[in-house]
Parts: sequence; structure tokens; C-alpha cells
Amino acid sequence: MSFLQDVVDILLQYVVKSFDRSTKVIDFHYPNELLQEYNWELADQPQTLEEILLNCRTTLKYAIKTGHPRYFNQLSTGLDMVGLAADWLTSAANTNMFTYEIAPVFVLLEYVTLRKMREMVGWPGGCGDGIFSPGGAISNMYAMLIARFKMFPEVKEKGMAAIPRLVAFTSEHSHFSVKKGAAALGIGTDSVILIRCDERGKMIPSDLERRIVEAKQKGFVPFLVSATAGTTVYGAFDPLIAIADICKKYKIWMHVDGAWGGGLLMSRKHKWKLNGIERANSVTWNPHKMMGVPLQCSALLVREEGLMQSCNQMHASYLFQQDKHYDLSYDTGDKALQCGRHVDVFKLWLMWRAKGTTGFEAQIDKCLELAEYLYNKIKNREGYEMVAPVIKARMMEYGTTMVSYQPLGDKVNFFRMVISNPAATHQDIDFLIDEIERLGQDL
Amino acid sequence: MSFLQDVVDILLQYVVKSFDRSTKVIDFHYPNELLQEYNWELADQPQTLEEILLNCRTTLKYAIKTGHPRYFNQLSTGLDMVGLAADWLTSAANTNMFTYEIAPVFVLLEYVTLRKMREMVGWPGGCGDGIFSPGGAISNMYAMLIARFKMFPEVKEKGMAAIPRLVAFTSEHSHFSVKKGAAALGIGTDSVILIRCDERGKMIPSDLERRIVEAKQKGFVPFLVSATAGTTVYGAFDPLIAIADICKKYKIWMHVDGAWGGGLLMSRKHKWKLNGIERANSVTWNPHKMMGVPLQCSALLVREEGLMQSCNQMHASYLFQQDKHYDLSYDTGDKALQCGRHVDVFKLWLMWRAKGTTGFEAQIDKCLELAEYLYNKIKNREGYEMVAPVIKARMMEYGTTMVSYQPLGDKVNFFRMVISNPAATHQDIDFLIDEIERLGQDL
Repeated sequence: MSFLQDVVDILLQYVVKSFDRSTKVIDFHYPNELLQEYNWELADQPQTLEEILLNCRTTLKYAIKTGHPRYFNQLSTGLDMVGLAADWLTSAANTNMFTYEIAPVFVLLEYVTLRKMREMVGWPGGCGDGIFSPGGAISNMYAMLIARFKMFPEVKEKGMAAIPRLVAFTSEHSHFSVKKGAAALGIGTDSVILIRCDERGKMIPSDLERRIVEAKQKGFVPFLVSATAGTTVYGAFDPLIAIADICKKYKIWMHVDGAWGGGLLMSRKHKWKLNGIERANSVTWNPHKMMGVPLQCSALLVREEGLMQSCNQMHASYLFQQDKHYDLSYDTGDKALQCGRHVDVFKLWLMWRAKGTTGFEAQIDKCLELAEYLYNKIKNREGYEMVAPVIKARMMEYGTTMVSYQPLGDKVNFFRMVISNPAATHQDIDFLIDEIERLGQDL
Repeated sequence: MSFLQDVVDILLQYVVKSFDRSTKVIDFHYPNELLQEYNWELADQPQTLEEILLNCRTTLKYAIKTGHPRYFNQLSTGLDMVGLAADWLTSAANTNMFTYEIAPVFVLLEYVTLRKMREMVGWPGGCGDGIFSPGGAISNMYAMLIARFKMFPEVKEKGMAAIPRLVAFTSEHSHFSVKKGAAALGIGTDSVILIRCDERGKMIPSDLERRIVEAKQKGFVPFLVSATAGTTVYGAFDPLIAIADICKKYKIWMHVDGAWGGGLLMSRKHKWKLNGIERANSVTWNPHKMMGVPLQCSALLVREEGLMQSCNQMHASYLFQQDKHYDLSYDTGDKALQCGRHVDVFKLWLMWRAKGTTGFEAQIDKCLELAEYLYNKIKNREGYEMVAPVIKARMMEYGTTMVSYQPLGDKVNFFRMVISNPAATHQDIDFLIDEIERLGQDL
């Protein structure tokens, strides 16, 4: 136990440093340097607990401080103390979500939390089903799997050979996981039709309808439209009402990938951007992104109850004994592709208790206000787009801040600024702009 | 920070109690009771930190003590202090495995650890590839996905419609995830052919060969044999050498599901049970089972390098910029179906440093010795098989110990005794036998 307390002391120091703007975000080393910097190898003989503590310190020395107020690199940033505590409790409880028997509290909390999320989506009384899955890509894949099963349940036993050629639709700015899912499920990436976006990155509904009609004329069966609420690069929201109308007209499953934008449902001021989501058949929503829950925490919500279970169940008799002495509907394991499933709900549940819905709302409103602040600051400045990779390399070496860059379509490389860290302030935004200009001034 | 320390104090108490044989394994309540026992709902308004601490205590009060020496219910049991500390560090670092840029140390440790595991499998110099995935079911699904891609790479773009009807083979005692994977990948569960087992639960190679020939005659294409090293219920090891010969003869991908039995590779005394695994094309090995690493920690190992990447990559330009300033082969994200991927390696790596290979070996040898002890104790006793569910219900209510039961084939319900908790002793085994007899004595 004194060993565990020693590790906790190291971690508490690290956490304090993560929030200290005078420390670096990253102490960058190239992979080969880092491999040589320390002996990371696995040996036959044990190390002492003293050495294990040193391993911990060294690991943290080279880690990226993702909670640092000047870390803007990914959609998941920030470090919430209640979320961290909840994750520690989850580790200590060390159990698995497949049955009520071995995770009674966590199974109930998943039930309570998913129902609440479905209420916020706008499904009457929070009706429907859901699961926490290992990330948004898997949640999107689940949606595709369930949509296919709903239309052609025989696919489960007979495979794709027994059903017509399916096609799915998503915008050209959508997340790559839609294509990954199609590849994995045996649908094929060619059967994911990319719909054009307007200049703000939103799917153009008339192009969607045109492509659906075209696909049907070719004899394909449209089975899924994956709309995006918060695209990965622009943060754009597809027009969900218009898309819902089209899905209804052509009887197509409507999925909303709200991995990034789902958090806006917490905000009375901003949730209008998701108007129409209540008409979706399924929704991906990652609290580990805009809501700042520690990784990983991604929910797939499905409006029709029972479908996940029928789609994925295999009735393994060693887990889901039908003669158990309690209500079997709490054995959620057969809804998932996974057998064992990590407990991801507790972090979100405990943070929600600590902040209340209003706390998440305030956090999200603040991030959107900061984004607007940044936009106003830089809208009249341009010219450093061309040199983004060079500035990025310098930024990593200085370690003072961290932001991602990328090209998109006909645009050259530009910085993709993610604002979701509750610890970031106006001053951090100012610092970032100054730093980018400082690092690029001799280019 | 004082809040975090308060949570740690609660957790340390819980951990100490987990190892105390005089405490119950479980304080069982039926789902509706538990829902009413406490207010678990999510509200608009925040709770105080005092209330949050109370939430933590209540959650642990009703949790199953999976680390308790008398918890024999699942394949994942036990609670390792170094593993727990490592998981806490992972939570504090709160990052994602997709790029070296945001997880430099963890990406390197995954590289070091997977190479070591491949060495133990017996691939020359630890060659090949791999990934930590969210559980054995997903690892097995990956193997199927990669095997299909290797034989028919066009499936990625064109889907199953463009390729012949595939069939996979696995034993009738194999894990249900093989069928789940086939359903998800659009292959269909009917295309998973179950091979007969002998009376000890091992796949019969002559039946495998017969069914392969039969499938080919029907025009199907055999693409995968999933052999099991450590079946879920009997703990049987399929004859890998004979299976490897057949796979070679018919040019079929050989996968070994060693989710449970992979840990035996650590034991010089027992690893002969996996002889032939070095001829596999892919291996699933879950350190969160027999090796006692906290959940989740499952590795998929693939002998051919580059295949995972070609199979799953989508080249998302916002993550995997090709003009980065470091060696891109460390950006592992595009090998996975997931986009974000939880850091699962650190627990295993740190435990391996703390125990050394010899420490894992001793732990596994001890579990197998205990299993033999149990076998010798009960081999001459029978008769309580018929009443397993009743005894189980009583056991949960008393909360003194926990073991799973299940039927299999023509066998009625029997207790499935899992020995993988390093904290269990001969006395705990004696206790279990006595307890089962005590709980059943008036039946």
C-alpha cells in the first residue's frame, strides 16, 4: 500500500505540473533518441519497487501533458479531477461490463446514464438502447452494423452473399471511420458515397438526394446515411432536419456521428445546431471529447430497443445463463461485439454528478466563446498557412504549445485549432497566436 | 488535490479489504433493489465534493471484489498492485495511441512489449506486427479481417460482393467471438464451421481436414482456421502442430485464440501445450486473463509485417500527416479499426518490469498447481451438478465466494472453476469445495 501511495504522490505532482503554464507541454525526443534515452526492455528478472517508481517518473517525464492549457492538438484535451478519480476507482474495481452479476453498480449506472443521454437527444422518455464502446470509430461501425441488420436480418447468418449490394452515404468531410467500418463489415469503401459539402463544410442535402436516386437506379440498396454533427476539421454541423426528411422519404437509417458535437446537447444556447437529431435512428456521442471526460468514453445510442441485442447476441451459455436468479435484461454483454467490455461509464457519471448538467453547459459555452474569440483575433491575418509543417516541428521542439495541422481538399496545410480544454483561457489563445507568429517569423 | 487524495484513501481501504478473506466477495442486491437503495440519477445541479466522495464509497460498497482470493467467477481475476498503479498513471497521462506525437512513450512501450510477446510466440527475432485491442473478441475479429484481406485484398474497396463465399473453421468449444466476428464482417455465422472435439475438448484434426475438403467441394473458399489455446470452459488446448500441417496443406490462415492460454508461454514447464503456435499467422493473447493484468489488455499478434496497416489504413490527413518531422512508422493508429485507442500497454509493461518473466512464470505455475490440487480433491466426488443454479443463487446471497456455472453440449450445468488469481491458495480451494457442499446440503 505504501508503494501505491508513492505512485499517487508522483501522479499528483504530475497533475499539478500539467496545469502550470510555465512548464512545457512536451519534452520532445525523436523515437530513436527516446529508445536510447532509457532502458525500456523487458527482462527475465524482476526490478525493485524503487526501480518501478523510477520507471513511472521517467514515463511521465516524456509524456505529453494533454491537460496543459496550451495543448490544442486533439479533440480530447484537458484533465478533470473528478474524472481522473473516477477512472482510478474503475481500475481498483477492475471488472467487466458483460453481466450484472460481476458489475452490478456499473451496469446500473450505464443504464441511468445512457437513458439520460437519450433524453437529451430528444427521444421520448429517453427510450431506446445503447452501449459505451471503445471509441467513436467503433460506435459508428456499430451503427452501420445495426442498420444493415435492421434492413436484412438474414445477413447475420448468411453474410453479405445473401443480400443485395448496399450503399451508405456520408459527407466528404465526415470522419474516416465510416469508410473503415464499411471495409470491415464487408460492404467495401467503394460503397460509401461521399456527398458534397458547402463552403462551411456542411453536407448539401440536394446532392445527397441526387446520389440516393442515382444509386437506386443502378440497383444498389441505400441503407444508411451518416450525418456529422461536428466534423473533425471544420467542426461543421450537417443540416439534420433536411437529412432526416430525405431518410424518411427513402426509408434509410439515419445515423448522426456526434462524436465531437454531441456535447452541444448540454448547452441551451448552442444545441439548436443539432436540431433534427431527435429524428435519427442512432447517434454516436463521445463524452471524452468536448465534455472533457478522460479517455475512453464513447456512447452509441439506438432509438429502437432490442435491436442491438438481436444483432449481436450469440447466447454464450457460460456467461448468459438463462436460469439465473435475477432479471436478465441487465446482462448487457450480448449487445456488444466485445465479450469483455471495459467500464467506461463511471467517469462520465461521476463528473455529471459533480458538475450537474449546468456545469457541462457552462464548460461548453466557454469553449465556444473562446473559439469565437480566436476567430475574431485571426480573421484578418493570413499568410502562414504554407509553412505550417515547419512551424509545427519547431513548436514540438520548443514544447511550449501544441496544435495540429492538416490539408483539406484544395486547401494547403493549415492549423486545426481544437478548443475543448476547460483550463484554457483568452490568454492561452493569445499566447498560441503569438507563438505561431514567433516560430514562423524567419521563414 | 486534497480531493484526489481523499479518493485514494477510499480506494486503498477498498483494496486492503479485497484481500481480506473475512470480508464478503459480494454484497448482492437484485437490480431493482439496488436502483432504489441510493439515488443514482443525474441532475441539473452540481453535487459537493463531499457528496462525490460518498458516491465513490457507495459504488464500492456494492462492487464485486474481483481481487478477492475467493472470486473464481471469470477468467479475469485478481488485483495486482503494480498493475493498478500503472493504470492510475495511464489515467493521469490521459492520451491516445494513434500517433507517436501524442503518446511517445506509450507507443514505444507498445513496440517493445509486442515484440517481446512475438518472441515468446516463437517468431524469429520477434518479427511481425501487432496491436493492443479492446478485448479478445475484437482481437479475434481483427485476425479474421486481416486473413480475409490477405487472401482477397479487393474486399476492402469492393466488399464481399466481389469475392467468393468464404468459410472459417473453429472447434465446437471455441469462443463465441469467432461467430460474432463472422456476423459483423459480413461473412455470416453459417460460414463458421464448427469442428468436433474429443472428450477433453480438443479439436479433432481429422474432422477439420474432412470439413475443409467438403467445403471446397461445395465451392466455398476456406480462409481461416481459428484454433483455441485454452478453451473458455474446459481450458483445453487444440493440437496446434496437426492444425498447422493442415493449414499449410490447404493454404489457410492459421489463427490461434490464446486469449486464455497464451499466458502459458511464460512457463517453461507448461508452454509445450502451445507447441506449434510459432507456425500461426496470428495470435490473440490476453494478459488481462491468466497473467492478472488489470482489464483491459488484449494483444493481437500478426506474423506478417505491414498487413494490419494495409488492411485498415484510410490515411486520415488530420492525424497521419505525411510531412511530419519524425519516423512515421511509429504512428500506429492506422493499423486499427479504432481511431482513438486507449493506452492498454503500460499496465502490462510495468508489471513485467516488476515481476520479470520469471515472476509471471511462477504465478502461472502456481495457478496450474492449484488447478491440479482442485482436480485431485474432487475427482471422486460427483452429484451436485444438477443443482448448480440453486447453489449459485445461494452463493451470491451469502457472498462468501463466487464461481460460474454453465451447461455444455450434453452435459448439464456444472461449476466452471477459474484459477488465475495470484492471491488464491490451497485453503481457498478447500473453502470453495466446502462451501459448495454446505450450500447444497439441504437440496
